Amino acid sequence: MTKKDLTDCSARIKPYIHRTPVLTSTLLNEISKASIYFKCENFQRMGAFKMRGAANAILQLSKEQQSKGVVTHSSGNFAQALSLAAKSLGVKAYIVMPSTAPEVKKEAVRGYGGEIIECIPTLEEREKAAEVIQKEKGAFFLHPSNDLDVILGQGTAALELLEDLPDLEYIFTPIGGGGLVSGTALATHYFGNDCKIIGGEPFEVDDAYRSLQSGAIETNTTANTIADGLKTQLGDINFPIIQKHVSEIIRVEEQEIISTMKLIWERMKIIIEPSSAVAFAALLREKQRFENKKIGIILSGGNVDLAKLPF
Amino acid sequence: MTKKDLTDCSARIKPYIHRTPVLTSTLLNEISKASIYFKCENFQRMGAFKMRGAANAILQLSKEQQSKGVVTHSSGNFAQALSLAAKSLGVKAYIVMPSTAPEVKKEAVRGYGGEIIECIPTLEEREKAAEVIQKEKGAFFLHPSNDLDVILGQGTAALELLEDLPDLEYIFTPIGGGGLVSGTALATHYFGNDCKIIGGEPFEVDDAYRSLQSGAIETNTTANTIADGLKTQLGDINFPIIQKHVSEIIRVEEQEIISTMKLIWERMKIIIEPSSAVAFAALLREKQRFENKKIGIILSGGNVDLAKLPF
Repeated sequence: MTKKDLTDCSARIKPYIHRTPVLTSTLLNEISKASIYFKCENFQRMGAFKMRGAANAILQLSKEQQSKGVVTHSSGNFAQALSLAAKSLGVKAYIVMPSTAPEVKKEAVRGYGGEIIECIPTLEEREKAAEVIQKEKGAFFLHPSNDLDVILGQGTAALELLEDLPDLEYIFTPIGGGGLVSGTALATHYFGNDCKIIGGEPFEVDDAYRSLQSGAIETNTTANTIADGLKTQLGDINFPIIQKHVSEIIRVEEQEIISTMKLIWERMKIIIEPSSAVAFAALLREKQRFENKKIGIILSGGNVDLAKLPF
Repeated sequence: MTKKDLTDCSARIKPYIHRTPVLTSTLLNEISKASIYFKCENFQRMGAFKMRGAANAILQLSKEQQSKGVVTHSSGNFAQALSLAAKSLGVKAYIVMPSTAPEVKKEAVRGYGGEIIECIPTLEEREKAAEVIQKEKGAFFLHPSNDLDVILGQGTAALELLEDLPDLEYIFTPIGGGGLVSGTALATHYFGNDCKIIGGEPFEVDDAYRSLQSGAIETNTTANTIADGLKTQLGDINFPIIQKHVSEIIRVEEQEIISTMKLIWERMKIIIEPSSAVAFAALLREKQRFENKKIGIILSGGNVDLAKLPF
C-alpha cells in the first residue's frame, strides 16, 4: 500500500464519516506527565472508528458487487458500521450474529438498516452462515479487520491526527483483530515524523503480543476481558504490517482497563467503551518511559451498555 | 449591568476558564427537527459553568479582601468552583457543607484546595456557620447564584456561544438558583439578535416557574428531583432579571430528565449531569413549537457519581 492509497481512501470516505475532534485534558497530562492528544473516534458516526473501514470497503466494490449487498459476521461495532455504511450508500447489508448476542446490539444493527441472520454461537457456524448468504444472495463478504480496504479506512483516523499534529512522537491504539493498529501504523509510516506506534492489549487476550514474540500468529484460548472489542483473533493480513511497523505491545490488566475508563469518563466527561481505554491504560502502566513526550491516543469507540457498567 | 460589564468580565476570567466547545449531533437534530448547538460547559474546568462566576466574583474583590479568603455554603458545583478558582488565584476558600454531604463531593472540594467546615444540614445552620467564618477570618461571603458578579460570570458562556453563532433564535438553560439563566439572559440581551431565552425546570422544584406566574419569589416545599443542581432557591437579584429577559419556563417530569440524559450520553457520547439534561428535555417536551429553529442549549455540567446512575 502506498501513501496515495491512504490519501485516496481518506478523500473517498470523507462524505460518509466525521472528522472527529482531538481533545486534551490538563489533568490527564499532569497524571501522565506527557502531552496527550485524544483522537475521539467515540464521536465517529455509529460511535466507533469501524465506520471508516466499512465505508472504504464498500466503496471499493464494483457497482455490480454493491448491487448484491455485503455480508459480515460480527456482534460488535463492525456489524453496526457495515449496516450504516451500506445504508448510506444504498447497499444491502447482511449481518450474521450469534443468537446469544445482546438484544441491544441487534437493535442497533436493525436501527442502521442491517438484516440480521442469527446463528449458533460458534465461529464455524458464523462462517457457515456467512457463506450461505454469499452463495444465495451473491453478497460480498467483508471481514471486520483482516482486509486491506478495511485497514486503509481505519488508518484515516491517524492520518487526520497527524494532519493536526505532525510532530507526535508516539501513537497508541488498542489491538483486537488488528485492523486499527495496522492502519494506524501504515498512516504513521507515510505521514508521521519518526513517530512510533504502540499497541495496548489486555493480558486476557494477548494473541498479538505473543504473536510478535513468536513470529507466528498465536490464538487466544480464553477471552475473559471486559474489552469486548478486543477479543477478535489477529489476522494474516494485519500481522505482517504489525510486525513491520508496530514498535511494541504493552499488555494491561482488567483492573487497569476499568480504572482508566473511569478516569476518562470522570475527568474528560466523555464516554468511551472499555476497549478504548486499553491504549491509554498501556501508556499509564509504563508512564515513566513516556514523560514529556507528545503522544496521540486513539479513543476507538463509545458504544457501551449503560445498564452494565463496571463501576 | 452594561454590555461593557460583560465583555470586561469575559476578558477578566479568560485565563482561569476554558472556552468550551460547541457540539452538534445529526441524530439529535433529527429527533428535535431543529438545529441544536450544545455549549459544553460539562467540559469546563471542574466540570461546570460555575467556574466562570466563581472566578469573576473573586477577581472583583480588592487585594485586601482576597487576602482574607472567601466563604460560601454549597454542597454542589459552586463549592468545587470556588475552591478551584480561589486556588488558581492564591486565595483561601472556606466551604460550609452539610455533614451529610456525600464523601465524593467533600473529596472533590479538598482536591481543589478548599477548606471544609461541616455543619448540621439545615439552611439556618449553613448560614450561621458561614457567618462565623466571615467574622473570625474576615473572609468574604460569595453566594452561589444570587450575586451580580457571579451572574455576569455565568453569562460569559452564552456570550461565547453567541460569538460562535450570532443568529441563534433561542437559548435554553436549566434554572436552579437562577445564576445561569439570568447571566445568559443578560448576555443574550446585549449580544443576541432577537434571540429568546427559555428556562427548563423540573416540576418537582418549580419555584422559578411559579414565581414568574405570581410575580413574587415562590419557594419549594419539597425537592424530590434527580437534578440536584436545581434544588436551590431563586434569589432576589436574579428574579428581576429573569422577569425582564426570560421568555418562558418549561417544566419537565423526572422521567423526561432521565431519558434526555441517557439520550445525550448514548448518542453524543458525552457525560452530563441530570441538571444539564433539563434544558434539552424542556425543548423535547414542546419540540413541535421549535421545528426548524436554530437553538443553543447550555449543557451546564458533567459532575455525576458514576456509582449512582439512574439507568
